[in-house]
Amino acid sequence: MTFLRLRVWIGLACCLAGFYAVRSSAAQPPANDEAQIRAVLDAQVAAWNRGDVDAFMLGYWKSAKTEFVGSTGVFRGWQAVLERYRKAYPDRQAMGHLTFSGLEVTMLGPDAALVLGHWSLEREHDRPGGVFTLIFRRFPEGWRIIHDHTSAVAGPASTQ
Amino acid sequence: MTFLRLRVWIGLACCLAGFYAVRSSAAQPPANDEAQIRAVLDAQVAAWNRGDVDAFMLGYWKSAKTEFVGSTGVFRGWQAVLERYRKAYPDRQAMGHLTFSGLEVTMLGPDAALVLGHWSLEREHDRPGGVFTLIFRRFPEGWRIIHDHTSAVAGPASTQ
Repeated sequence: MTFLRLRVWIGLACCLAGFYAVRSSAAQPPANDEAQIRAVLDAQVAAWNRGDVDAFMLGYWKSAKTEFVGSTGVFRGWQAVLERYRKAYPDRQAMGHLTFSGLEVTMLGPDAALVLGHWSLEREHDRPGGVFTLIFRRFPEGWRIIHDHTSAVAGPASTQ
Repeated sequence: MTFLRLRVWIGLACCLAGFYAVRSSAAQPPANDEAQIRAVLDAQVAAWNRGDVDAFMLGYWKSAKTEFVGSTGVFRGWQAVLERYRKAYPDRQAMGHLTFSGLEVTMLGPDAALVLGHWSLEREHDRPGGVFTLIFRRFPEGWRIIHDHTSAVAGPASTQ
């Protein structure tokens, strides 16, 4: 009888553990995913504003499949994205001071997220800015951008 | 002995069924998800090319959270996206003949997908075109676009 009772308790414990595992791994991603994603973007902004494009690029998945879409088309691969940044922003004056604002993080599942945000550069002679759509995926090393679609928007980036 | 053998067979069958259920529902989304997503886009192109903006809009999630990012900024909500299309393309001549090409579908989990593609409009006096990033989510009614970031690209939409 004592042995039977033990088996019932072990069964109940397994059920609870199974339920908890399913609930925490699939249905609701941990609340700190958004904080981790925002931290990647904060680190990118800090790197940009000290002129460190290599550190800025740490936010992107280091893969030939990483994609950047800009006003001149599609760039494929982490290396092509890096080269585009180096060419478009050859020195500290061109890089200016970067700000991201209005970030909205939407989880697309336990391992993927969509980020909509606004970017602006304060430079000596102009202040370009616009909107970006980022797709993040979770990797063993952390959350990384796998797809970046960035647009320049004439005038202040409007929100309608 | 026969009863024991039956139990072993039932146990094996349950294991196989469980393995198959896990494999098909979580790890690898069914191969026809991509086909379903492509069918939504095919239906959008067909609707556009018969001048039916309402049918074109069926591809978008009918929600106040649906987002469209274009060259003038962010439009929030299915209704705002519809009104933008109606304003930017007031008649059949402005709508022209739409083509989507080079579609690449990337599953982001069992219920979300990223689509990168090129768009072009053949019109009487010009041929605008560019690149779009779409985020699809699976809903009870099917796959729908929850986020659309569309850019015009000067000249032919290059792929680098």
